[in-house]
Formats: sequence, structure tokens, C-alpha cells
Amino acid sequence: MEKLGHGADVESMVEQYGKKNTKVIDFSSNINPEMPGCIDSIIKSGADALSRYPDIEYRRVRKNISEYLDIDMEYVIPGNGATELIYLLMKNIGKKIAIINPTFSEYRRSATLSGLEVVDFVMDSKNGFRLDIDEIESRIDEFDSLFICNPNNPDGKLRDIYELMDIMKKHGKLLIVDETFIEFSPMYRERSLVSELETNRNLFIIRAATKFFGMPGIRLGYALTSNKEIIDGIYRYKEPWSLNSFADAASEYIFKESEYMERSRKYFEKEIEFMTSELKKIKGINVYETDTNFILIRLDGIKASEIRKILFERADILIRDASNFIGLDDSFIRVAVKKHEENIVLINAISSVMGLL
Amino acid sequence: MEKLGHGADVESMVEQYGKKNTKVIDFSSNINPEMPGCIDSIIKSGADALSRYPDIEYRRVRKNISEYLDIDMEYVIPGNGATELIYLLMKNIGKKIAIINPTFSEYRRSATLSGLEVVDFVMDSKNGFRLDIDEIESRIDEFDSLFICNPNNPDGKLRDIYELMDIMKKHGKLLIVDETFIEFSPMYRERSLVSELETNRNLFIIRAATKFFGMPGIRLGYALTSNKEIIDGIYRYKEPWSLNSFADAASEYIFKESEYMERSRKYFEKEIEFMTSELKKIKGINVYETDTNFILIRLDGIKASEIRKILFERADILIRDASNFIGLDDSFIRVAVKKHEENIVLINAISSVMGLL
Repeated sequence: MEKLGHGADVESMVEQYGKKNTKVIDFSSNINPEMPGCIDSIIKSGADALSRYPDIEYRRVRKNISEYLDIDMEYVIPGNGATELIYLLMKNIGKKIAIINPTFSEYRRSATLSGLEVVDFVMDSKNGFRLDIDEIESRIDEFDSLFICNPNNPDGKLRDIYELMDIMKKHGKLLIVDETFIEFSPMYRERSLVSELETNRNLFIIRAATKFFGMPGIRLGYALTSNKEIIDGIYRYKEPWSLNSFADAASEYIFKESEYMERSRKYFEKEIEFMTSELKKIKGINVYETDTNFILIRLDGIKASEIRKILFERADILIRDASNFIGLDDSFIRVAVKKHEENIVLINAISSVMGLL
Repeated sequence: MEKLGHGADVESMVEQYGKKNTKVIDFSSNINPEMPGCIDSIIKSGADALSRYPDIEYRRVRKNISEYLDIDMEYVIPGNGATELIYLLMKNIGKKIAIINPTFSEYRRSATLSGLEVVDFVMDSKNGFRLDIDEIESRIDEFDSLFICNPNNPDGKLRDIYELMDIMKKHGKLLIVDETFIEFSPMYRERSLVSELETNRNLFIIRAATKFFGMPGIRLGYALTSNKEIIDGIYRYKEPWSLNSFADAASEYIFKESEYMERSRKYFEKEIEFMTSELKKIKGINVYETDTNFILIRLDGIKASEIRKILFERADILIRDASNFIGLDDSFIRVAVKKHEENIVLINAISSVMGLL
């Protein structure tokens, strides 16, 4: 089986090092460490529906998401995680796609598997990962669509991309924005492009519901667009029943958890501040400012693969070796923000590894 | 949204007729009406794992299925229902596929969406849906692979396809068998081709775990083959995390439910006998002998769409209008075997509709 090189692959590490799964603290996957209180209702409701096929047209899921975001229900395409939608989209766009790197590797994998030609833009780590909009516009004829993750994985920056959106629209090109991590940010209302959907058919937004709500195992994501051709194209290729009963049920509850959502955002804001300032105190650690629930770090004096191995062996901590992102090298790691006590364990563990150098 | 014309679409009927979802007895989807006792353990175990990503390599699922079927773990490819595997297979086989009709429409849809050319063989209803192996062999040069469902949906017949397998192997062509309904049959051990996998790399078997175990909403299916090229090809295209935590957990429990499995098979054997003999008593009803958990019926004097509408409106019963299967016409309906009391309701309802003609 081909290794896709994602985070969260606790099982491979456990297999390799013969550890107990349950002991490992996983900082390699970027998930809210707290679930909303409605989890019991989701499980009960999903379990009650198990003996039936989920609605093949996902009426309830689409309605719930449309109410949460205050948009037309027809603009919502639910998926088995954001991943299914990324893959379906690639079958329905022009042959040349630009990707803003470093970023989530499934954009490129899905594009390539659909036979698309990929144009890479690389934001430079030495330049604070600045998004060069002038360069994009000057090369606009090289691609039909452009894929950006906002906030971006792995650097965590939530960018103001309104200007980019206007340029893309002006040139009649499709802007694809993965907003999977946007709900973790206090600025998500101002920076999300959801409110633009109604008037901009050159826009396609992807979201993974279950990272922010701390339940990635439930597999619920969605895409948003007012572009009728793309919507029809996606349903033309979409496999039936890709959502399970629990994902269907989750849509009924999670989006009503407004108190939980606000509490989560406040928690991440405060915890990011704490972790960033603590990590910065460690010698050999360079921390990138983040707006979401994970932190990109550049290390001096030790390789990403080395510190990953040491942290796993000595401290039962799994971090993300970020060296396989385009534009990064083996000095980069990425860590998620987890519970406060766990974050302290991580900081201390990194501190003691770096102190030995 | 394109209508795919499957059964189980209770929601569309409810929407159309303004009924309460919970009142409808769904005879249009072929699911075991009893779940195994381990369902509580599955839900608990799945819920406990929700905060993590499911294992991207599905080690536990593959191991559990390999032990259940006594085959090599490397031969097992788990999927989000059988559907995901049908679609992935189509990306990894020769350009010309033969399909034995009438049958499940997703074979054709997936083949067409992958750009394959489809050669149709049609078993004749007037001939008891006889499988004409001589015709297949005489046209063997017209296709690279052949897809058969066994027992077949919609006629329910479990065929002895060893001779067909030998012919395919001799000519170096791939035989694809969907055994989704085989576990419902008392003859499943003798007729399944699972034991041939080890020595036959021209064989690809598909199974949906969750129909037989009465939990289609959990979305678990699997494919089996010893063909390394196809396995590698499928993983090359497979999207990450397509299985949810509950499907992963289900694999740990359902295959150990041997008492439940035997009880289910005995139930269906007895209930099929009962339903077949009762239905045969009704004037204008022609029943096809079945080996699985659903029954194909040909009607005299009333159209499938008409009786479907009447049964839904008057008796809250949803049946499958089978007229959209290739080789059938508007005189065919399909009904699932459900709980004994429910089956009686169905028989009485059909009887009174037909009595009015």
C-alpha cells in the first residue's frame, strides 16, 4: 500500500515501535480536542438509523448546513469528509490547476489522478509565506483554476484573499478555497468567502465539518458553490450513499452548538498565544504565527524526522514531520493545539530534546 | 440532482406523498431485518474512536475480514460500502467490460463514468433468467472482463458459476463477482468463489458486509483478489479515510456472530418458502424462485409503477419498481424479505390490490 505521508498515522508508528495505541498523544492531526455536548444525541440518532440506507439525496444534511451558513440549500454538496469533494471537483474543472504551496498534498494527488496539469506557486518560508498576488495575476493564463487553503495547512495563516478572489473573477477563473480550518479562527466571519457565493459563480469552497467539532472519525465534509455546472458535474460522478448514518445525524446537531463554537475559538486563541510564547523561549525553535489550531515550527540543529522519532520513543508524542510539503525541507515540523495539559507535555518534551543539542 | 433509480429511497416518496418517514415499511431495500447482538459494542467502540482518524491502512478491518474468510490479509480491500470498490475497480481494468443483465445499475454507471465500453448480456425472463455460458464464450473476444452478481439482483438466483470461472481463466479474462447477497443463502459455502482466490488471479470478488448484518447505514464493504496489479491500482486511486470509525469497529465484531449468521440463513430459507407459496396463490402474480433475501415478481394486469403507488398510498409499503433493470419491463417488481409480521402485511396488501383487478 502506497504511503500517503499524512499526519494522524498513529498505527504505523505503533506498529514500527511496538507501543500501545492508547498511550500516544497525537499532535500530528489537527482536531479540536473537545467534542460538543451533542455527541450523545448524534450517536443515538445515528444508531437508530443504521438499519436504513442514508437518504441518497442528503436532504437533511444539505438543509442543516444551509441554515448554519445562511445560504441556498442547492449550493451545498455533502461528502464523506472534505476529501471526497476534492476528488469529485477535479473531474469537473478545466485541465490546468494552480496550487498555492506548501499545502495539503491531496489537492495535488487528486488533480494528478484526474489527469490535470498542476502549476505550482510556492510561498517562501523565508518571506513569512507571503502570498504573491501579483505573480499569480501575471501568470493567470497558465491555469483555469486556483486552489488555496485558508487558513493554510501547514503554516496556519488566515489570509485576506478578497483581492485574489476579484482577480480570479475578473479573468473568469475558478477560485477553490479549502476553509477546513477557518472555524478555529476568531476572524473566520470576516475572512470566509461564504457570503460571496450568491454573487460569484467562480468560487468553490470546501469544508470539513468534523475537524472543528472534534470527530474526524464520523466523516462529514461539504462543498459550497453557486456554480450550477459544477454542482451537476459533481452529482454526475458522485457515488451513492457515501455518507454514513452518523454523519447524517451529526448535521442535525453540531451546527446548533453556538456556545461550544465560541468557547472553542476563545480556547484556541488563548492557547495559541500560550504555546507560541512558550515555544519561542526554546533555543533552536522558530515559530510561525498561526491563526488556527496548529503551529508550524522550523528547527535549528536537528532534523524533523529525528525529533519525531525521539519524541515518539521517549515521550509517546506523535508530531508531524512537515518535510514532505512542497517548499519546506527537513527542518520543519507541525504540531496541533490540544488540551492545555497535553500542550505542556509537548512543550516540555521539545524543550528537553532541544536542550540536549 | 440526477435520480439514480435505486430502491430504499423512502425520502423521495415521503416528500412526494407527504407521509411520515417512520410509518413506511421499506420492502425496496434488501437488508436483514435483524441486527446482530454486537451492535451495542460496535456503537460504543466506534464512538470511543471518533476523536481520531480511522487507520489510513485499515489494518484491523483487513485482518478481521481475512480471518472470517480464511484468506490472506493482503487480498482484502475495505471500502465505504461495496460501491466505493466497484468504482475503484473500473479505473483498473481493461477498456471493455461485459455485464450480465438484468442487474444492479451501478456496475454500468461506474464503468461508463470511467470511460469503459459496456457489452451487455441479457438473461431472458421468459427463460427463467438462464445464464448462457456458451454465448459468453462465443463472444469472449468482445470484452476484457465480465461482471456478474451472484446471487443476482433482481432475480435472486444463486448460480453455479465454476464453469464460467474456468472459461474466463482459460482465456485470461477477469471475472468480477458481486457476492453481496451470498451470505443470505444456505448454499453460500459451495457457491462462493472465495476459496478460489488463492489460485486464481483472474478473479475479483465484491461484498457488502452491512446488508447481511442489517446495518447499511454503517457503510462497510470489501473487495477480494489475489491480483497484485489490481490491488496496487486500487490503492493508487483510493481516497484516504473513506471508512468511518463505526465501520472500522464493526469489523471487530460482526464476523464473530456465527450463531446469528446461521439463524439468519435459516430464517430466510423458511421465510422465502412461506412468502413464495403465499404470493403464488395470488392471481396475476408470477414469482421467480429465489436463493436470497428478496423476490422478483412479474405482474399481470397492473403496471409496476401503479402497484408501487397504490401500496405506498394505501398501505405505507414501499416496494421496488423493477422496470428500470435492463431486460425487464414495467410488469416487474421486487420485494425484500422482512420480519414475518411485515411480510404478512405485504402479502395481504398485494393480494387486495390484485383482487380488485
